[in-house]
Amino acid sequence: MSKVKPSKEFFFDEEEKWEQVDPKIQRQIHGMDDKIMLVKAKFEEGGVGQLHQHYHSQVTYVASGEFEMTIGGQVKTIKAGDSYYIPPHVMHGCVCKKPGVLIDVFSPYREDFL
Amino acid sequence: MSKVKPSKEFFFDEEEKWEQVDPKIQRQIHGMDDKIMLVKAKFEEGGVGQLHQHYHSQVTYVASGEFEMTIGGQVKTIKAGDSYYIPPHVMHGCVCKKPGVLIDVFSPYREDFL
Repeated sequence: MSKVKPSKEFFFDEEEKWEQVDPKIQRQIHGMDDKIMLVKAKFEEGGVGQLHQHYHSQVTYVASGEFEMTIGGQVKTIKAGDSYYIPPHVMHGCVCKKPGVLIDVFSPYREDFL
Repeated sequence: MSKVKPSKEFFFDEEEKWEQVDPKIQRQIHGMDDKIMLVKAKFEEGGVGQLHQHYHSQVTYVASGEFEMTIGGQVKTIKAGDSYYIPPHVMHGCVCKKPGVLIDVFSPYREDFL
């Protein structure tokens, strides 16, 4: 695992800036170190997280909105309060059905996001 | 890192059961494997997460409510949409000021929660 400078401790919603990573998706990188990274992703309706896979373990909490979520061979509708786990190297993606925010957490951190 | 059976993929809010871990705190363990674990913690007003530390890296997203959060020497008021990072072995704790839910994610998983 590569080494990275750990983040600050506190992240306040009204202070953090969004990065536009797709016409319908914005991102904020919150707390992180070598082992963990929390990423907030805001979707407009119709925003698509294309099917992809990575070696990181991932858990995601749905803070708001509604999404059609694909993990491996499963497709489910998820909404605020739900969560999911993505094992390493399993294909996954989503389509935003109602605007909302996903809280993605990875282990180890996503070096490709920095 | 010890080995553990990975969890299922999807966790739906209305299907998961709460575990009472303190008179004012309930817990649900969601997605996990060796490297990561997502835990939902629901606090009543006045609920106290006593000051403690652990070797795991931790990130937490505030899903709802308001908390007075201590991390090392810092004390801040945090609310829905905010998040924080706790480095390994740094003392931390919280007091719930308005009822709410914290989404705690650990790396590696919390063997002491199983």
